[in-house]
Amino acid sequence: MSKNKIHNILVLNGPNLNLLGTREPETYGSTTLTEIEELTKARADSHGFTIDFRQTNIEGTLVDWIQQSAGQADAIILNAAAYTHTSIAIHDAIAAIKTPVIEVHLSNVFAREDYRHHSYVSDVAVGVICGFGAQGYLLAIDAIASMLRNQS
Amino acid sequence: MSKNKIHNILVLNGPNLNLLGTREPETYGSTTLTEIEELTKARADSHGFTIDFRQTNIEGTLVDWIQQSAGQADAIILNAAAYTHTSIAIHDAIAAIKTPVIEVHLSNVFAREDYRHHSYVSDVAVGVICGFGAQGYLLAIDAIASMLRNQS
Amino acid sequence: MSKNKIHNILVLNGPNLNLLGTREPETYGSTTLTEIEELTKARADSHGFTIDFRQTNIEGTLVDWIQQSAGQADAIILNAAAYTHTSIAIHDAIAAIKTPVIEVHLSNVFAREDYRHHSYVSDVAVGVICGFGAQGYLLAIDAIASMLRNQS
Amino acid sequence: MSKNKIHNILVLNGPNLNLLGTREPETYGSTTLTEIEELTKARADSHGFTIDFRQTNIEGTLVDWIQQSAGQADAIILNAAAYTHTSIAIHDAIAAIKTPVIEVHLSNVFAREDYRHHSYVSDVAVGVICGFGAQGYLLAIDAIASMLRNQS
Amino acid sequence: MSKNKIHNILVLNGPNLNLLGTREPETYGSTTLTEIEELTKARADSHGFTIDFRQTNIEGTLVDWIQQSAGQADAIILNAAAYTHTSIAIHDAIAAIKTPVIEVHLSNVFAREDYRHHSYVSDVAVGVICGFGAQGYLLAIDAIASMLRNQS
Amino acid sequence: MSKNKIHNILVLNGPNLNLLGTREPETYGSTTLTEIEELTKARADSHGFTIDFRQTNIEGTLVDWIQQSAGQADAIILNAAAYTHTSIAIHDAIAAIKTPVIEVHLSNVFAREDYRHHSYVSDVAVGVICGFGAQGYLLAIDAIASMLRNQS
Amino acid sequence: MSKNKIHNILVLNGPNLNLLGTREPETYGSTTLTEIEELTKARADSHGFTIDFRQTNIEGTLVDWIQQSAGQADAIILNAAAYTHTSIAIHDAIAAIKTPVIEVHLSNVFAREDYRHHSYVSDVAVGVICGFGAQGYLLAIDAIASMLRNQS
Amino acid sequence: MSKNKIHNILVLNGPNLNLLGTREPETYGSTTLTEIEELTKARADSHGFTIDFRQTNIEGTLVDWIQQSAGQADAIILNAAAYTHTSIAIHDAIAAIKTPVIEVHLSNVFAREDYRHHSYVSDVAVGVICGFGAQGYLLAIDAIASMLRNQS
Amino acid sequence: MSKNKIHNILVLNGPNLNLLGTREPETYGSTTLTEIEELTKARADSHGFTIDFRQTNIEGTLVDWIQQSAGQADAIILNAAAYTHTSIAIHDAIAAIKTPVIEVHLSNVFAREDYRHHSYVSDVAVGVICGFGAQGYLLAIDAIASMLRNQS
Amino acid sequence: MSKNKIHNILVLNGPNLNLLGTREPETYGSTTLTEIEELTKARADSHGFTIDFRQTNIEGTLVDWIQQSAGQADAIILNAAAYTHTSIAIHDAIAAIKTPVIEVHLSNVFAREDYRHHSYVSDVAVGVICGFGAQGYLLAIDAIASMLRNQS
Amino acid sequence: MSKNKIHNILVLNGPNLNLLGTREPETYGSTTLTEIEELTKARADSHGFTIDFRQTNIEGTLVDWIQQSAGQADAIILNAAAYTHTSIAIHDAIAAIKTPVIEVHLSNVFAREDYRHHSYVSDVAVGVICGFGAQGYLLAIDAIASMLRNQS
Amino acid sequence: MSKNKIHNILVLNGPNLNLLGTREPETYGSTTLTEIEELTKARADSHGFTIDFRQTNIEGTLVDWIQQSAGQADAIILNAAAYTHTSIAIHDAIAAIKTPVIEVHLSNVFAREDYRHHSYVSDVAVGVICGFGAQGYLLAIDAIASMLRNQS
Repeated sequence: MSKNKIHNILVLNGPNLNLLGTREPETYGSTTLTEIEELTKARADSHGFTIDFRQTNIEGTLVDWIQQSAGQADAIILNAAAYTHTSIAIHDAIAAIKTPVIEVHLSNVFAREDYRHHSYVSDVAVGVICGFGAQGYLLAIDAIASMLRNQS
Repeated sequence: MSKNKIHNILVLNGPNLNLLGTREPETYGSTTLTEIEELTKARADSHGFTIDFRQTNIEGTLVDWIQQSAGQADAIILNAAAYTHTSIAIHDAIAAIKTPVIEVHLSNVFAREDYRHHSYVSDVAVGVICGFGAQGYLLAIDAIASMLRNQS
Repeated sequence: MSKNKIHNILVLNGPNLNLLGTREPETYGSTTLTEIEELTKARADSHGFTIDFRQTNIEGTLVDWIQQSAGQADAIILNAAAYTHTSIAIHDAIAAIKTPVIEVHLSNVFAREDYRHHSYVSDVAVGVICGFGAQGYLLAIDAIASMLRNQS
Repeated sequence: MSKNKIHNILVLNGPNLNLLGTREPETYGSTTLTEIEELTKARADSHGFTIDFRQTNIEGTLVDWIQQSAGQADAIILNAAAYTHTSIAIHDAIAAIKTPVIEVHLSNVFAREDYRHHSYVSDVAVGVICGFGAQGYLLAIDAIASMLRNQS
Repeated sequence: MSKNKIHNILVLNGPNLNLLGTREPETYGSTTLTEIEELTKARADSHGFTIDFRQTNIEGTLVDWIQQSAGQADAIILNAAAYTHTSIAIHDAIAAIKTPVIEVHLSNVFAREDYRHHSYVSDVAVGVICGFGAQGYLLAIDAIASMLRNQS
Repeated sequence: MSKNKIHNILVLNGPNLNLLGTREPETYGSTTLTEIEELTKARADSHGFTIDFRQTNIEGTLVDWIQQSAGQADAIILNAAAYTHTSIAIHDAIAAIKTPVIEVHLSNVFAREDYRHHSYVSDVAVGVICGFGAQGYLLAIDAIASMLRNQS
Repeated sequence: MSKNKIHNILVLNGPNLNLLGTREPETYGSTTLTEIEELTKARADSHGFTIDFRQTNIEGTLVDWIQQSAGQADAIILNAAAYTHTSIAIHDAIAAIKTPVIEVHLSNVFAREDYRHHSYVSDVAVGVICGFGAQGYLLAIDAIASMLRNQS
Repeated sequence: MSKNKIHNILVLNGPNLNLLGTREPETYGSTTLTEIEELTKARADSHGFTIDFRQTNIEGTLVDWIQQSAGQADAIILNAAAYTHTSIAIHDAIAAIKTPVIEVHLSNVFAREDYRHHSYVSDVAVGVICGFGAQGYLLAIDAIASMLRNQS
Repeated sequence: MSKNKIHNILVLNGPNLNLLGTREPETYGSTTLTEIEELTKARADSHGFTIDFRQTNIEGTLVDWIQQSAGQADAIILNAAAYTHTSIAIHDAIAAIKTPVIEVHLSNVFAREDYRHHSYVSDVAVGVICGFGAQGYLLAIDAIASMLRNQS
Repeated sequence: MSKNKIHNILVLNGPNLNLLGTREPETYGSTTLTEIEELTKARADSHGFTIDFRQTNIEGTLVDWIQQSAGQADAIILNAAAYTHTSIAIHDAIAAIKTPVIEVHLSNVFAREDYRHHSYVSDVAVGVICGFGAQGYLLAIDAIASMLRNQS
Repeated sequence: MSKNKIHNILVLNGPNLNLLGTREPETYGSTTLTEIEELTKARADSHGFTIDFRQTNIEGTLVDWIQQSAGQADAIILNAAAYTHTSIAIHDAIAAIKTPVIEVHLSNVFAREDYRHHSYVSDVAVGVICGFGAQGYLLAIDAIASMLRNQS
Repeated sequence: MSKNKIHNILVLNGPNLNLLGTREPETYGSTTLTEIEELTKARADSHGFTIDFRQTNIEGTLVDWIQQSAGQADAIILNAAAYTHTSIAIHDAIAAIKTPVIEVHLSNVFAREDYRHHSYVSDVAVGVICGFGAQGYLLAIDAIASMLRNQS
C-alpha cells in the first residue's frame, strides 16, 4: 500500500437497508443507516481511506454502481440485502470487474429462512462477514486495510 | 374507525399490469388497468376512502412505494404480478413496515405454471384474494373496510 | 341474474372447523362456526340468497356434498380445511361438476407449515380468499353475487 | 377352477365414479357406472361368475369392503380412483388379505397429472389395466378367469 | 393425581388394525386387537384407569373421536396406522384439543417403507412408542400414569 | 370392423425378452417368448387377426419397427422392457404415427425398483396392461379387438 | 414481406453486457457492445432493416422496452443476460405482446453453471441461438429476415 | 427369563447428554444425567437387572461400547443424541451384534428440526421411545423386562 | 479459410427425423427431411461447402458417425433428436473428437416437456440453434462458414 | 478350478473406448484399446485363460453379447462406458444370466461429473474396479482367477 | 467490559487445520497453524485478552472443549473445518452453552463444493467470518472485543 | 521403483471392521480382520513391501493416521467403512497429503442401501475396488505395486 495513495472504498447497500433503525429492530438492531455510514467513515478515516456510501432499492442500480467502481474504488463492501439471494446480475457484475468485494450482512442470515442461506454474491466475493450488526462494516474496513497492506 | 378520519389506500400494481385489456385476455380479462382504477376508486368512495393507484415495471420502485406507505396509507393492496414469485426485496419491504398488505391477483395463479404457486408476499400479507379478476380489488377494499372497522 | 330466481349457496366446511372458537384461537380467531354461519346467512340475505351451511370431518362426505350441488346450488363456498392439502378426491369432485367453487381459508395458509401451501382445490376453483377469518366467507358471498350478476 | 364352485368377484369403485357419463366425458367416456356394472355382469356371467358391484366416496368404506372380501370373494377388481394416489390405508388393507386384487382405471392415468402417476395399490395388486375405459373391467374379468383356471 | 378421581384413557386404533392376528403376522404379530384391548384394560386397571378402546377404518371418525375426548378422557393413546402418514386432519384435531396424545405403533415403522417414516401425529403428540408390538400399548398406559402423577 | 378386412397386429418385444423362460423365472415366469408368440397367435386367430411378432435388443430397431407400422399394422402391442423407462426415442416414434399402441409388461413393474415406475411409453399409449405374465398379451389382443370393433 | 415496408428490429441487451470486451473475455470474447451494434446494424442494412439497439442493467427497463415494441418493431432480439434465468416479469412481457422474440446469448450458457441452464425467455421466444459470440446477433437478424419473408 | 440369571442392561448416552439439567431445560427438562442414572438403576433393580450407565461425546466410543456388549449385556438402551441422525457407524455396530437395542430420546425429536427426523438407529433397533423425558429410560427398562420374559 | 480447400460438413439427424413432414406437423413443420437436405445442400453450395447428410434411429450409429468425422468433416451439424436428452454416449463421442459440433433442433425444445430441456450435447457443442424449423440448419451452415472464415 | 478346463473370459467394451489413446488422454491415458487387449491377453495367458475382447458403440449389441456369454464364458469383464450410467437394458441382461460380471472403468468415475456417479451395472456385478487405467483390466483378470479358484 | 477483568478467548480448530502451510496452499494459504496462533495471541494481547488455542481431529473432542468453556472462556472462536458441515453434535454443544461463538473459516467456503455451503454451526453462532485466511481470526478477536465492550 | 528402497503400505480400516468374521457374514464374509491382515501381509511380502495394518472406530483417528502417512508410507489402502459415506474430514485429510490412496470395500456397496452409494473418499482416491471381499486388499496391493513400478 503506497503511503501516498488515498484508497477509496465503495460501500453499497441494497433494498430496505434505508429503513434500518425502524425495520424489525429485533433482527437488524436499532442503528440507522446514517449512523452506520458515520461509524464506517470514522473507521475508514482511521486507516486513511475515503468512503463512498450508497443505498438503493433497485437491483440494476447496484449493478451500475458495481460496474462504476473500476478506477474509482479500491474495494467494495457490499450488503446486497434481499438481492443477495436472487440476483445473478449482481453476481455477474462482480465477476466482470477486478475490484475486490467483501460481502457483509447485519443479521446472521444462516439463522433465518432457508431462502436466505444461498448467496449469489459469496462465490465471487473475497469473503463474507455476517451477524455482527453495524460492527460488520467496520470489520470489513479492517479486512480491506489488511488486504491492501499485503498487496503493497 | 374514527368517523372523521379519511383513510387512504395505496393500490400498487407490478409489471405488465399496464397492458391489461390487451394482454392475454383469456387469462387476465378485457378490463384495462384504468378501468380497474376507476372501479376501485368507486368502491373506495363508497367506504369514504381515498386511493392512490400506481403501476410500475421496476421491482425497486415497488419497494420504494411500499416503504413510503408509512404515514401515508392505512392499508396497501398489492398485486405484485411476476415479482410476487421472485422478489425477496418486496417481502422484506412489507415485513419492515406496519401498514397491512392485502395480496391480490387477477388470475387464479394456482391454476397456472408451477413457478406461480409460490409467493414471497403471502406470508407477510394479511390475506390473499386471487382469481376474481378486477372484482378482486373491490373485495380487497371491502376487506380493508372491515379490518379498519374492527380496529376502531 | 334473473330478478325472480332465488340463488342458493352451498357452504361446506371440512374437518375440525366445528371446533372454531376454542381451537387454537391465535390462529383461527374466537368466532365459532355457528357465528360464522349466522354472519354468512346475513350477508347472503342481503343479496337475496339462501345458504345451506354444513360441516363434516369425513373426506368422502365432502365429496358427496359437492356432487349433490348439481341442481341444488348456484355456487359453493368450500373451506376444506386439512383435506385441502391431501384430497385428490375433492379435486376430482369439483372438476366433475359445473357449479363454481370458491376456496376460503380462515387463516393465511401461506404463512404456516409448508404442507399447507399446496391446495388440491385451487386449480379447479374460481378463486381463493384466505387470511381474513370469518370475513372471508362474506367476501366469498359478495364475489358470488358479482359473478352471478355478470352471468345474468 | 372346480367346475361346481361359483366364483364371486367383488368390483369396488372409488370416489366420483358414480358421476360417470356426466363427469368430464372427454376423459372418462360417456358410459355410466350402471352401464359398466351391466357390461361387467354380462362378462362375468359368460365365465359363470357372480359379481358384487359397489361404489363409495369414502376411503374407509373401501377399506371395509376390501377387508370383507375374505370368504366372500375370489378376486377383487379395484378402481380406487383418486384414493389410488393417496391411500396407504387401502394399500394396507390389500396387503392384509389374501384375495387377489386387479387394479383398473378407466383413463390412462399416466397421460394425466403427475400426482396420478403413483399408485399405492399397484405394488400389492396382481396387475394393472388402465386406459381402456369400461372395457378395462371386462379385461379384468377375463384376467381373473384365466388366473382362477390356472389355480384349479 | 387426585386419589379419588377416576382417569379415563381413550385408545384409538386406525385402519386395518381390526385384522390384527391374521394380518401379516410377521410384521404385526399374532395378537388380535381384542387381546390387545384386554391386555391394555388389565394394565389400565392396575393404575385405576378406565379405558375406552375403539377401532375404525374411517379417517374422519378418528377426527370425531379425538374431538370428543374433551371432558371425556384424560389422555389418548393413538395408533392411527396408515392415516399416521397421510392425515393432516388428524394432526389438526390433536392440535385443536388439550388432551395429551401418545402415538403408538406395533411395528417399527422406521424399519419399513420410506412413506411410513413421516408422521403427521408425532409433532403434536407428547411422545412416540413404536416397535414393541402389543407391549407398546402397555408402555403407553404406564407413561400416562407417570404423566398424570407428575401433574397431580 | 369390416368383416372382410384382415387386421394385422404388430407385437414388438424389447431387450432381454428373448431370454424368457430362463431369465429370472420368479419375476418373469417360465413361459418362453416362443410360447408367448404361439399363445398370442392363437388368440389373434380367434379374432381373425394376423400377427407379426418380433424381438430386438436394440432401441433404434424398435423405433424402426414402430415407424414401419404405418400401412402394415392396425395396432401395436409393445413390451419395450428396459427401454420403456429410458427411451424418449420410442416415445417420439409412437407420437409420430397414428397406429394405436398398447403397452404390455409381464411383471408388475410398479412392485419393482423405482426406476421401473416411470414409462416413456404410457402417455402416448392407448392403455397399459401389466403384471399378468403371458396372459397380458392375450388381454391386449382382446382389447384391440374391442377397439377395432368400436371403430367399425 | 412487402417490398416497400421498412422493418425495424429492436435489439435489447441486459445487465453487464455494456462491459463486453473487458468482461471475462475468455467467456464473452473481446468484441465490445458497440462493435456488436455496428456489426448487427450492417447485417440489418443488408436486409433493408433498421435496428434500435439498447442496453440496460435494470430488469424493469427491459420490461418497458419489450412492451413498447408494439407498433414500433417487427421483431425483438433479446439477450437478457442474467435476467434470462430469474425474470418472470420479462417472460410475462413477451407473452403479453405479439412481436416475435429471438433469444440470443454470446456464450454457450449450457456449458456453464447450472443456474444458467434454465431460461424464462425460451418458452415464449420463437427460438434460441447461443454460443456463437457476436455472430449470434447476425444469425438472429438472418432468422428474422427469413421469418418475415415467409409471412409476406 | 431364567429366575437365576442376572440380566445386565447397557445404557449408552451420546453427545451433550452430560449437560442435562443445565442444557436447554425447556427442551430437555431439568433432570440431570446422574438423576436419570439413579432413576434407571432403581427401575432396573425392581426387575432384578443390573445396569451399566455411560456417556461419551465421541462417536467411535459409542461404537466401541456397542461392540463390547457381546457377552456383557442382555440389552442396550441407546440415546445416541446428535449421532442418531448422522452416524452410519453406530448403525453398522448395532447391525453387527445380536444384543437387542432400544432407542430412546428425551425430547420428541419429530417435533423439532427436520434433520432430527431421520435416525440411523431406528431401523436396526427393536423399537423407539421418545418424548417422555427421563421417564423414557424407565419405559425402556420395562420393555426389556417384557421382552426377556417372553424369550425365557 | 483457405480459398482452395473444399470444406465438408457432416449433417447428422437422429431418431424419427426421417418422418418429418408427416410427424406431428404442428410441432415439426411440414418440410420433409429430404427437403431439408436439399435446402441445406443449397446453402452449403453457396459457401462452397459439400455436405454429407445422414439419418439414423440408432444411438450407437450416431456415435459411430461422430467418431468417423475425424479427417472427413470440418464441422458437424447435429440434430440428435430424442437422444439429445438421454445419450451420454453421444456426449462422450463429441468430447473425444476435435471437430466442432453445432446443435440444432427444429422445434423450440424449451417450450416443450421438461425432459426435453436438458441436453447432453450442449456442453460439448460450440453453440445451439433451436426453434427455427428447417431454417435452423441453414443458420448453422452460415455459423460454420463464419467460424471457418475466422480460423483461416 | 479344474486343472484341465480352459476358462474363457469375455471382455466387453462400450462406446468410444475404440478411441482410446487419442480420446481425452488426460482423462483416459494414452494406451490404445488394442494395447489394452494385448495386456489383458497376456495376463489371461498367465492364468491359463483365453479372452474374447470386443468393443461396440451400440447398447443393444452389448446386451446381445452379455446374453451370448451363457456357455461361452466363465466370467465377463464389462466396461460399459457411457451406457453404464443410462442402460437398464444392460442391467437386465446381467441379471438374466448366471455368468459373473466385473465392472471396470479406466478413469475414476466418482471424481467426474455427477451423472457418472450412478451405475446400472454395479448392483448386478460381483464388484467394481475403477480409476486404475489399463491396469484395471489386469486386476479384474486376477480377481476372476481368484474367484474361479475358490469355486473349484 | 470491566477494566479489571481479564477475558479469555477459546480458539478451537477442527480436523486437518494442523496441516496448514503444507495443506493445499492455493486454498488455505501458506501460514501455519502455529503462526496463526501467534498472530491471534498478539491481537488478543492488544485487547488485553488471553487465548487458549487448540486443535483436534476428533469431533467429540471439539464437543468436550465447547462444553468446558463454561466458566473458562468469555467467547469461542470456532473453525470446525470439515465438521462444520456434518456435526449436529457440535451444533448441540453450542446450543447447550451460553458462551458466544464466532464461526471462522480460512477459505471462502461458499466458493467451494456444495457440501461446504451448509454449516451446522452458523445458526447457533453469533456470526460468521470466512474467506480472509489467517486475518479472519484477528477480525474475530476484534469482533469479540467490540461485543464485550458493548455488554459491559 | 528403486530396487533397494523398501516400500511401506499403510492399510487403514474403519469402524466395525474389527468384528469381521462374526459381523453379518452373508454381507462381509467369514474371514476375520486378522486373517485379512495376514493375507495382505503375504501379498505385500511378495512385492517386497512392508505393511502397517490398523483399525479404529474413531473418525478422527483415521484422520490422524492419514496425516501421519507423510514420510512413512508410499501408499494407503483405506477401507473407511461407514465413515466413507459421512466424513468430509477424511476427504480433507486425503486431499491434504500427497500419498496416493486406494479405496477398498469388502462388500459391493453399490448393491446395498442408497446411503452407501456416495463416498467422500472416492474423488480424492486414485481408484476404487469393491465387492471382492478380502481379495480386494490383495488387488489393491497389486495395483500399488504397478503404480510404484510405473513411477520408478
